[in-house]
Amino acid sequence: MEYSVIGKRLPRIDAPIKATGQAKYAADLSLTGMLFGKTLKSPYAHARILKLDTSKAERLPGVKAVITGRDTSGKKYGFFRSTMDQVYLPLDKVRFIGEEIAAVAAIDEDIAEEALELIDVEYEEMPAVFDPEEALKEGAPKVHEEVERNVCCQRLFNFGDVEKGFQESDHIREDRFTFEAVIHASLEPHASLAIFDSTGKMTLWTTTQMPFLLRRDISRILEIPSGKIRVIKPFIGGGFGGKAGLCGNNLCAVLLARKTGRPVKIVYSREEEFVGTWRKIPMIIDLKTGVKRDGTLVAQHSRCIHDGGAYSGTGILTLYNTGLAQLIPMRLPNFKYEGYRVYTNKPPCGAQRGHGQNQPRYAVECQLDMIAKDLGIDPVDIRLRNATQPGDVTISKLRITSCGLSEALKRVAVKADWRAKRGKGAGRHGIGIACGGFVCGARFSSVSAGSALIKLDEDGEGVTLLTGASDIGQGSDTILAQIVAEELGLTLGHIKVIAADTDTTPFDGGSGSSRVTFYAGNAARLAAIDMREQLARIVADQLEANPDDLVFRDSSVYVKGSPEKRLPFAEVVRLGQLNQVLLGRGSYMPKSVEWPDNKTFAGNVSGAYSFSAQAAEIEIDRETGQIKLSKLTLGDDCGFPLNPMSTEGQAEGSASMGQGQAMLESVCIQEGQIFNPSLLDYKIPTVLDSPEMEPHHVITNDPEGPYGAKEIGEGYILSTAPAIANAIHDATGVWLKNLPITPEKILQAIEKK
Amino acid sequence: MEYSVIGKRLPRIDAPIKATGQAKYAADLSLTGMLFGKTLKSPYAHARILKLDTSKAERLPGVKAVITGRDTSGKKYGFFRSTMDQVYLPLDKVRFIGEEIAAVAAIDEDIAEEALELIDVEYEEMPAVFDPEEALKEGAPKVHEEVERNVCCQRLFNFGDVEKGFQESDHIREDRFTFEAVIHASLEPHASLAIFDSTGKMTLWTTTQMPFLLRRDISRILEIPSGKIRVIKPFIGGGFGGKAGLCGNNLCAVLLARKTGRPVKIVYSREEEFVGTWRKIPMIIDLKTGVKRDGTLVAQHSRCIHDGGAYSGTGILTLYNTGLAQLIPMRLPNFKYEGYRVYTNKPPCGAQRGHGQNQPRYAVECQLDMIAKDLGIDPVDIRLRNATQPGDVTISKLRITSCGLSEALKRVAVKADWRAKRGKGAGRHGIGIACGGFVCGARFSSVSAGSALIKLDEDGEGVTLLTGASDIGQGSDTILAQIVAEELGLTLGHIKVIAADTDTTPFDGGSGSSRVTFYAGNAARLAAIDMREQLARIVADQLEANPDDLVFRDSSVYVKGSPEKRLPFAEVVRLGQLNQVLLGRGSYMPKSVEWPDNKTFAGNVSGAYSFSAQAAEIEIDRETGQIKLSKLTLGDDCGFPLNPMSTEGQAEGSASMGQGQAMLESVCIQEGQIFNPSLLDYKIPTVLDSPEMEPHHVITNDPEGPYGAKEIGEGYILSTAPAIANAIHDATGVWLKNLPITPEKILQAIEKK
Repeated sequence: MEYSVIGKRLPRIDAPIKATGQAKYAADLSLTGMLFGKTLKSPYAHARILKLDTSKAERLPGVKAVITGRDTSGKKYGFFRSTMDQVYLPLDKVRFIGEEIAAVAAIDEDIAEEALELIDVEYEEMPAVFDPEEALKEGAPKVHEEVERNVCCQRLFNFGDVEKGFQESDHIREDRFTFEAVIHASLEPHASLAIFDSTGKMTLWTTTQMPFLLRRDISRILEIPSGKIRVIKPFIGGGFGGKAGLCGNNLCAVLLARKTGRPVKIVYSREEEFVGTWRKIPMIIDLKTGVKRDGTLVAQHSRCIHDGGAYSGTGILTLYNTGLAQLIPMRLPNFKYEGYRVYTNKPPCGAQRGHGQNQPRYAVECQLDMIAKDLGIDPVDIRLRNATQPGDVTISKLRITSCGLSEALKRVAVKADWRAKRGKGAGRHGIGIACGGFVCGARFSSVSAGSALIKLDEDGEGVTLLTGASDIGQGSDTILAQIVAEELGLTLGHIKVIAADTDTTPFDGGSGSSRVTFYAGNAARLAAIDMREQLARIVADQLEANPDDLVFRDSSVYVKGSPEKRLPFAEVVRLGQLNQVLLGRGSYMPKSVEWPDNKTFAGNVSGAYSFSAQAAEIEIDRETGQIKLSKLTLGDDCGFPLNPMSTEGQAEGSASMGQGQAMLESVCIQEGQIFNPSLLDYKIPTVLDSPEMEPHHVITNDPEGPYGAKEIGEGYILSTAPAIANAIHDATGVWLKNLPITPEKILQAIEKK
Repeated sequence: MEYSVIGKRLPRIDAPIKATGQAKYAADLSLTGMLFGKTLKSPYAHARILKLDTSKAERLPGVKAVITGRDTSGKKYGFFRSTMDQVYLPLDKVRFIGEEIAAVAAIDEDIAEEALELIDVEYEEMPAVFDPEEALKEGAPKVHEEVERNVCCQRLFNFGDVEKGFQESDHIREDRFTFEAVIHASLEPHASLAIFDSTGKMTLWTTTQMPFLLRRDISRILEIPSGKIRVIKPFIGGGFGGKAGLCGNNLCAVLLARKTGRPVKIVYSREEEFVGTWRKIPMIIDLKTGVKRDGTLVAQHSRCIHDGGAYSGTGILTLYNTGLAQLIPMRLPNFKYEGYRVYTNKPPCGAQRGHGQNQPRYAVECQLDMIAKDLGIDPVDIRLRNATQPGDVTISKLRITSCGLSEALKRVAVKADWRAKRGKGAGRHGIGIACGGFVCGARFSSVSAGSALIKLDEDGEGVTLLTGASDIGQGSDTILAQIVAEELGLTLGHIKVIAADTDTTPFDGGSGSSRVTFYAGNAARLAAIDMREQLARIVADQLEANPDDLVFRDSSVYVKGSPEKRLPFAEVVRLGQLNQVLLGRGSYMPKSVEWPDNKTFAGNVSGAYSFSAQAAEIEIDRETGQIKLSKLTLGDDCGFPLNPMSTEGQAEGSASMGQGQAMLESVCIQEGQIFNPSLLDYKIPTVLDSPEMEPHHVITNDPEGPYGAKEIGEGYILSTAPAIANAIHDATGVWLKNLPITPEKILQAIEKK
């Protein structure tokens, strides 16, 4: 039977409240007696703190508290237990420009700002290191005294026999690709509002993608049980990975609230977003690839340096992902990967859409075009030759189930009229293609499953879904509501979604690794099925039918084949709750998923893998080097699109972000100082820069995803930048191995050529 | 095995936050842009509204909205579907002094007050009726045009053959008892804060004992699905039945919020509490009782008029309860009951602690003493002779399971030294005894079960209980936390209770009919057991044991008989949630409970019945008639006290309220006008008036109650007033058949005698 809600183009359930400006974001919240917090930041990239005297600031009328490292436990924290290296509000030394060392709570923001100026700090500047390759050298300044050669962490893969692979290759290329830091540029800055009650119970409303993991992290650092901490996710204006971890903003609000006994709110300015929060990690990738004459990939060796900044951020996962990126979309029999995260005196880096995979995918996809050119193979053909196929098990033990990559490549080539356009741009026009693959959720905390709870309105007019999943703007609440509506035969208007609050909603790992539809979606589906089955058992008698023969549809329940034997859903609810209260519960964790092996890092990390192909068409002004991205043809395998309006939006949003990173975005940093910390100087694509986008879904109906769905909001970004770079090459014959591809770089490259 | 948490004297989990003043009650809440609401009340007891012009008020600067009946649907509402008779903000006529006819929302309270004065109302006064017996007469003014002889509703029981019973009786007495209106006098007045969002979703924080039923009622009157309504119960400062129903306060805040699009708060003044909210119903009881020579009850006929005021309130249930009161504690083979609720032009009446049963119990218990005196039987003996026994099925089909009434009577008699003191007070001292019985929850809405949900903190350091049950000051959150702690082998500190919010917590019928421990407690227990069983299945492998042999205790799980084979609870949680999220759910409804028969009103309405006996000792100043209540010896059968500190507190609190109603409290009303609408003029007992109280629990371990527990917070009040009256008789020889027993009435009675 056809779905009635799933797969339909439905507007988001939160559209009206957002469109009317009534949705409350963290910065909009206000409590009686609330104080405003501001933080003091280091002006040095690396310096010993000789003196930190807050007494003058404390005496300023209106100031209610000043905190420094003396108010913390001094305990180190970090996103992963194995790499906890950050002391919050350090007392000994600072490691980057912008590192917070003190915070003030005052009755208004101006007084708080003024108080910051009254904090007396004496620094002794220390030699700093900004370049990761320099940092790795013997004798380089140490960002952390105890860490030799500034190696924060490493991940080494060695699958197959890469040396033998190179020996067996007909053609080998070696290229270096480099990537600069990119900011998330969520429209909503980080904000926190914290309050403690007299029993020590804390409530924190904050911009978080992962309320439960944030609770865990705050619990660890404050050394109080997580049950004493309530984290509430209000509406979120974009996260993209930047709101996945504990942030200074969170901790300072919490510590100031504890010290003052009053609510404290801290909202970061746009400048603070640039200097103080996670960014996408700069990388150096040395990529060596060996292929057969026909383009078949034989061996790949990737040596990758992550310029992590002063702390570990999401280090080990980012590193792992950089290796993983090379394993998903293409068959690769031999692969060696050396990934190192290096400390430098710059702001720390963390997850960002595509998390650690955009850069290696860029490298591979560009190099693949170079190889194709070297061998005289069409870029589409070389990809089709190597494309992962359904049922593949990779050398790293990823188990590919559904896979529509080949179909996506072909569809995109046809729709973009590839054969007609490729190589025929007369130096002004170009078309490029690239592809990618991504996980649909991964484990990154001890509790990883998704879960959901469903309760019935007593009047039978609706149901409530309680989920810990975090809609951060991607529209997941709507998808979850569609799932519940579908299973119970209701409409979207019947479903209320309550999310996410660590006190009242069941656990979810949060919005990360593209897990929401897959994990929370499956959990919501299971909870709805659980509710439906309970209702079916109760009404089966009434309709003289087998519970399994009952159909829930059109806000009614009827007997399959005898649609006249029916009850309205409201009556079903009434009957179901005569002598009990029904609760539907669901918990989901894909059975096939395992933790990667400790040593080899092999293991199936995801329950499914999504795939994408993109064709970019550009136009170049050869005088100025200006590029106009004229069209993106998007082809994705997201399994089955649960709401095409939403999945297309996610595809287009990813592509737009990819476009920005390809052509515009870079955090300009010199000697640890950021020079473009504003959206005036740091350009992201606006609607005026957006190309025509033509999205196409290749439907593969994944066996594990809810209704066959896989992720789309994240992996899609992987193929945009290389498609654009490959298109630029098609027009100009030059390769740009450093992002972003600015007009200057193009002109220089053309000139050099 | 002994309980580790249950049955212990533990302080309440909300004690610290209440003691430090940080608990937020509805009136403490504040939202940005909040308006303040005030209501305009009728100065006439019965009058036609000729004109209601709000235009001047609307023009007052600072006024944001004025509402009248023109802003409502005009739909009638009421607590029960069969007696919906109240139109909110009537446009045609007013039926009592204090009836709300308009409301204003303004930027501050002063402006709102001022605006009320600008509302131009013209009334045409109509003949009013204040006495319920007058109201019943042909030709009396009609409170509702369509209702003949002002009979709001009636309940008629006829069990056995009462006429034959009287014929077989050796002694018959007939007495009339009358009762005046009594106010609830909760320390916290009614307050509501309502807000609508642009999608029409409403949130209401309010003083409610029954958030889910309030949601139902608002949904009915606003004609929007209940899913669009969120009712949140903040901390509540006492309810006693007065916060069980929809209140003008709620509706005006909601309608003003809808009209203004802004948050609106209305907090009633103490005077408004007196004139506008439910009160305990005045009653006239004509009681005829026939007994055998040995005191055995043979027949009872009770004719009872409820002076209901202008609307039905909790009418049919109050009426039913008045009949029920005579059936629980004493064996009665023949019983006829005629209960009528009559409309009068006074404020409407609703549930109050003891709901409809205090007055008949007073009548029966006093008359029993009169009969005992007539027949020369000791008051304790006559009660023991008639006392309900375990296993009894009453003529109305109540199924008595556990019953410790006889034991309670004996215990109280011994502890109070009854034999030594009775009849030996020399005209100055007196001792009296009385008893009572009560339900442990009853059905009064279509969904009646209790339910609960349990989730685990990921760090294993605590669990969260989500319950719809409403702690309104009685301490039920603590009891529920004890239950969960007991089942999971944890301490009270590990348990967090989240209650009550219609969006996030599972359904509960609310705090009424003494159902919380019984319904919500059993549901919480089932949810905890459900969680425990899930955990046990998972850890059984680890400990190489049968899941049934695992003991959860001392924050550990160990194998019965092999306590060295153990895991800490936190480790159990970790193991349990490796690949899933566990949720424990529970729903409870006693199997034995039925709706009373439509015609006979027979049926077992409760899963268990609690019992009490009290001995009161008084001292009288024969010059002034002043009575000092010197001691109350309290004996109750609450099954098994889950927290003696709490159960004793409930017993003492009930007794204190009973004392007030016996000796002090009465709403003075003449021609519909209340003359003592303040706690200065309306006296409730303070700590200075409190007697020595000596509570004794008779433990009967009810088979259905959680851990054998039954109710204690409500039924206990039934026996206080008659015990005091009987003690006064012991000292003075006079009977007071009208409450409260004031010095004036005593002096008059003594004089008359």
